[in-house]
Amino acid sequence: MPEGATRGLIIPIGGAEDRTTGETILKRFVRVSGGRHARIAVISAASEASHTGRDYEQLFRSLRAEKVWVLPFENRKQAEDPEELAVLEKATGVFLTGGNQLRLATAIGGTAVARQLRAMNARGVHVAGTSAGAAFLPEHMIAFGEEGGTPRAGSVQLSPGLGLTNQVLVDQHFRQRDRLGRLMTALAYNPFAVGLGLDEDTSAFIGPDGTFEVVGSGALTVVDPAEVEYSSADAAKAGEPVSIVGLRVHVLLRGARYDLGSRKAMVEEAGLEDE
Amino acid sequence: MPEGATRGLIIPIGGAEDRTTGETILKRFVRVSGGRHARIAVISAASEASHTGRDYEQLFRSLRAEKVWVLPFENRKQAEDPEELAVLEKATGVFLTGGNQLRLATAIGGTAVARQLRAMNARGVHVAGTSAGAAFLPEHMIAFGEEGGTPRAGSVQLSPGLGLTNQVLVDQHFRQRDRLGRLMTALAYNPFAVGLGLDEDTSAFIGPDGTFEVVGSGALTVVDPAEVEYSSADAAKAGEPVSIVGLRVHVLLRGARYDLGSRKAMVEEAGLEDE
Repeated sequence: MPEGATRGLIIPIGGAEDRTTGETILKRFVRVSGGRHARIAVISAASEASHTGRDYEQLFRSLRAEKVWVLPFENRKQAEDPEELAVLEKATGVFLTGGNQLRLATAIGGTAVARQLRAMNARGVHVAGTSAGAAFLPEHMIAFGEEGGTPRAGSVQLSPGLGLTNQVLVDQHFRQRDRLGRLMTALAYNPFAVGLGLDEDTSAFIGPDGTFEVVGSGALTVVDPAEVEYSSADAAKAGEPVSIVGLRVHVLLRGARYDLGSRKAMVEEAGLEDE
Repeated sequence: MPEGATRGLIIPIGGAEDRTTGETILKRFVRVSGGRHARIAVISAASEASHTGRDYEQLFRSLRAEKVWVLPFENRKQAEDPEELAVLEKATGVFLTGGNQLRLATAIGGTAVARQLRAMNARGVHVAGTSAGAAFLPEHMIAFGEEGGTPRAGSVQLSPGLGLTNQVLVDQHFRQRDRLGRLMTALAYNPFAVGLGLDEDTSAFIGPDGTFEVVGSGALTVVDPAEVEYSSADAAKAGEPVSIVGLRVHVLLRGARYDLGSRKAMVEEAGLEDE
């Protein structure tokens, strides 16, 4: 686990990741975090279920991480606690559970935990999040929205997220909850970021060079607005359809790579990646 | 209503078109078919409901078409009946109702009605279809399939349609039934056609020059596979996700135009078209 030299991975996961047989995504997360030397911090602030943190603790132990700490950070007071922050500091990988991304944002946004997570990621610590935890990772977070395959004004609410990157907007449970429309709507507001629609049990391992690899059993839908020629997002009234011309869409599966800089997909090696 | 010179319009409608207040799509259909001189033939073979044809008859009368004939063509024997064919021949606009596109295909596919519809459209008669009637219009028809936002092998079944054009594949109730995945799957098989995903109360008026205008209250999602660099449709097993790299997607609203030849969207005049 090199520290200091390069940024750590940013790993949004689409929710409902396999926890039983393959555990491909979580296994990979533990591996890159040091394998048998991995020290995993689980932040379960997004979840209202008291067992969520402990469930992941057990899971990461079964994947043979050296240490697993559950750090709930359920409120802003906890998120400033120096003792908890000192434990977090020792992690080689941080995992944010699912739940409600606004619980996460309201509990740790602007706190010492948020600052520390950005600093840790910058010096090489990997930060993964599933479902609500995935949505929270970037600078701009989809807070909530409506289902549907085509964009509608007001169908998505953005809010500031953790801020590990501003290159992507993440949406999760993508196929399962019919979320293309709200992701396109979010991108139409300001087409500078790339939309990542993550199916369940599907993740992007975003490296410091701005390329990511798809890991998991579902599809990752890349929605690239770089060449958008026209959008009516400025004029559409709430609930009305929004027009967008010139989106580029890629549906990527495990092993595929995508370069957020050049906006190019690389699928030649699809399926060749060992697990 | 000029005959002979140019092909008539091909008008797929996404289903559930407004029949009450605006009736924009149906009104436009009557207008281009001659307005007060329009002679509309309604083919209700797709529907199992006995009143479907009569409902549209009443509707087109209320829109002041000169003549409205309901020609059920519910079975292959009817679809060869010279008397009915002679009535059909007099129409300036033909309307195929919704229901089940396989009912339509099995009843009139390969019959004298199908041949006559192609010939009539070629000499300038407009042919519209809603829902199942829309799916049936092109050479390649989506017969049935599954819901979902990302492509999966086996999620869509194609069959031959009426054959008025092979430039498009049509899917209807698009947003309402979450059908992007199956449309992308259908295009991945052979990326030569353009996919038109029609929301309810939304239509494309496809002209003889291969450009269409969007009419109606919802969105028309154009899925253009012309620049697809890679697809795993040949290798994916049934139920597995399919990878597609390089799709171009446009979400178009009323008034927008699209050129199926150059694959360019023209939105400058959006909203300026009078109704």
